Amino acid sequence: MASSRTTRLLSLPRRAFSSSSLKFDAGVSMVQGASRGIGLEFVKQLLEKNDKGHVVATCRNPDASTGLAHLKDKFADRLKVLPLDLTVESSIEASASSIKETYGHLNLLINTSGILSIPEVLQPETTLNKLEKSALMLTYEINAVGPILVIKHMWPLLKVGGGFGTERSNAVVASLSARVGSIGDNHLGGWHSYRSSKTALNQLSKTAAVEFARKKDPIVCILLHPGTVDTDLSKPFQKNVPKEKLFSKEFSVQKLLSIIDNVKSNDNGKFFAWDGQEIPW
Amino acid sequence: MASSRTTRLLSLPRRAFSSSSLKFDAGVSMVQGASRGIGLEFVKQLLEKNDKGHVVATCRNPDASTGLAHLKDKFADRLKVLPLDLTVESSIEASASSIKETYGHLNLLINTSGILSIPEVLQPETTLNKLEKSALMLTYEINAVGPILVIKHMWPLLKVGGGFGTERSNAVVASLSARVGSIGDNHLGGWHSYRSSKTALNQLSKTAAVEFARKKDPIVCILLHPGTVDTDLSKPFQKNVPKEKLFSKEFSVQKLLSIIDNVKSNDNGKFFAWDGQEIPW
Ligand SMILES: NC(=O)c1ccc[n+]([C@@H]2O[C@H](COP(=O)([O-])OP(=O)(O)OC[C@H]3O[C@@H](n4cnc5c(N)ncnc54)[C@H](OP(=O)(O)O)[C@@H]3O)[C@@H](O)[C@H]2O)c1
Ligand SMILES: NC(=O)c1ccc[n+]([C@@H]2O[C@H](COP(=O)([O-])OP(=O)(O)OC[C@H]3O[C@@H](n4cnc5c(N)ncnc54)[C@H](OP(=O)(O)O)[C@@H]3O)[C@@H](O)[C@H]2O)c1
Repeated sequence: MASSRTTRLLSLPRRAFSSSSLKFDAGVSMVQGASRGIGLEFVKQLLEKNDKGHVVATCRNPDASTGLAHLKDKFADRLKVLPLDLTVESSIEASASSIKETYGHLNLLINTSGILSIPEVLQPETTLNKLEKSALMLTYEINAVGPILVIKHMWPLLKVGGGFGTERSNAVVASLSARVGSIGDNHLGGWHSYRSSKTALNQLSKTAAVEFARKKDPIVCILLHPGTVDTDLSKPFQKNVPKEKLFSKEFSVQKLLSIIDNVKSNDNGKFFAWDGQEIPW
Repeated sequence: MASSRTTRLLSLPRRAFSSSSLKFDAGVSMVQGASRGIGLEFVKQLLEKNDKGHVVATCRNPDASTGLAHLKDKFADRLKVLPLDLTVESSIEASASSIKETYGHLNLLINTSGILSIPEVLQPETTLNKLEKSALMLTYEINAVGPILVIKHMWPLLKVGGGFGTERSNAVVASLSARVGSIGDNHLGGWHSYRSSKTALNQLSKTAAVEFARKKDPIVCILLHPGTVDTDLSKPFQKNVPKEKLFSKEFSVQKLLSIIDNVKSNDNGKFFAWDGQEIPW
C-alpha cells in the first residue's frame, strides 16, 4: 500500500496535495438525498466499509430523519448532516461552502433524491390524457435540475480526484437515474413525467461528463439504475413485481458501490444497471 | 387514384368515414409554431404542394406574423390561423376545440416551436458553471412540455388516420427535435438546457408513440432534426458552420416533408435527420 501510495503521490496533479486531502485520508463522500431509502443505505454502507471514511449526508429536513439520527449516534465523528433541498439552489451552495470549510474537497458525490409519486400531488401517468404541466415541471425540477445543480456546485471540490485511501483514482459523481429513463428501452409507455425527467438527467449528466473529460478533471461522472428496490418510492407499484426482482436496499447499494469503486476513466458518461450492464440511452 | 381510394375506403376503420374527413378531401394539417422560421415554411409548402389541402397555422401572436399574413392573402380559404402559446395550456385546448368545430379532425400535426436563446433571458450554456435553474425550467417548458401538451390535446382529432387525398395511410405527428438532443451523439457538451429539453421531448414523444401503437391508433409519431437551418434561432451560432452545412428553410422543409409523406407504421417512435437517417437516442 505505502509504495503504491507513493507512486500515486508522484503521479497525481499538484492540486491533490492540499493539506485537506491528506487529512481526510480515506476520502470524503457526499450522499445527496440521504433521509431514507437508497440514499440512507449508501450513507450506512459508506460509513461501515471504511473506518476512516468521512460522509456528508444531505437531506431536506435533517431533524426528521430517524435513520440519519441512528447513524449519527454510531458514527458521530465521521458523519456530517447538512440541510439541502434540491428546489432551493442557495441550500446547495451553502452545502458546498460548508463542505469546503470542513474538508476542503470531496472524492465522491452520489445524487440519490428522486420523486415518482406524491399523494394528492403527483401520480405517474398511465396515459397521455393524464399529462399535467405541473407534474411534468415539478418532476423535472427535482429529478433533473436539482441533481445537475448539485454537480455544478460540488464540481470545484471534486477536482482533487479519487482521494488517498479510497479504491479510486478518480473522483466519482454517480446519479441515480432509472431504466425507465432509457428511450431505447421504452416498450411499455406511461410514467411520462418520471421517464422524461430521468432521460433529461441522463443527458445533463452526459453533458457534464464530456466537459470533465475535455478539461482533464480527474472526475468520472456516471448514471446508475438500482433495480426495483423495496423503498417508499416503489411501494405503491410493487404489486406486479416478481419477488426475486424486488431488491432490498442493502443488496442494491452493495452492487452500486461496487460499480462506483471499480469505475474506470472510460466509464465516464455511461449509464449502468445494478449488475454492471450498460443501459442504452 | 379512384380505385386505390375505393380500396382504402373499404379497408379503413369505420371512424374514417366521418362526413368531415370526406369534406376536407386532401387532409387537414396543423403547424404549431408557424409565425416564422421552419414552421412558417412548413405552412407555405403544405399549402403549395396540394391545392386542396387545408392548413391550421398556430402561433403566439397571429397579428405580428407578416409571413402568415402574406400566406393568408394568397390562400385565404385553405389557411386558418389560430393563437396558441405553448406556455398557456388553455390556448392549446382552445385550438383543439376550434379545429374540431371547423374540420372535425386532423391528419398531420407538426410541432415546430422551440427556443435556444432569447436576448437578456436565455443563452445556451458554454460550461456547467453557467447553468441556471430558470433557463433549464423555461427551456423544458417550451421545448418539451409544450409540444407534448399539444399532442395530448390533438390526439382525439388525429384518430382518423392519414386522410383521403394525402399520400399517407396514417395520421402523422412530427415534432422538431435536434441532433444535439441525442445523448449517444453528444461529444461536444455545452448547451445543457437546450440539449436536455430536446432529449426529454424525444422521450415524451416515444412514450406517446408506444401508447398509439398499443391502442392501434392510425397515428405515427416521429421526431425530426432539420439540419442547421438559416433562421433566427441559428443566426447567433452560424459563425463556425461551413456554408454547405447551413441549409435554407426551403431545402430543409422539403426534405422533412418527404420524410413525413413516406412514413411507415414501423417508423412510429423514431428520430430522423433531414436526410432520413435515424439518429441514436
Ligand atoms: N426504488 C426503486 O425501485 C428505484 C428504481 C429506479 C430508480 N430509483 C431512483 O433511486 C433514487 C432513490 O430512490 P428511493 O427508492 O430511495 O426513493 P425514496 O425512498 O422515496 O427516497 C427519495 C429521497 O428523495 C428525497 N427528496 C425528495 N424531494 C427532495 C427535494 N426537493 N430535495 C432533496 N431531496 C428530496 C427524499 O427526501 P425526504 O425524506 O425529505 O422526502 C428522499 O430522501 C431516486 O432517484 C429514484 O428515482 C429507485
Ligand atoms: N434552425 C436550426 O438550425 C435548427 C436546428 C435544429 C433544430 N431546430 C428546431 O427546429 C424548430 C424550429 O426552429 P426555427 O429555426 O424555425 O426557430 P425560429 O425561427 O427561432 O422560430 C421559433 C418559433 O418558435 C415559436 N415559439 C417560441 N416560443 C413559443 C411559445 N411559447 N409558444 C408558441 N410558439 C413559440 C416562435 O414564435 P414567436 O414568433 O412568437 O417568437 C417561432 O415561431 C425548433 O424546435 C428548433 O429547436 C432548429
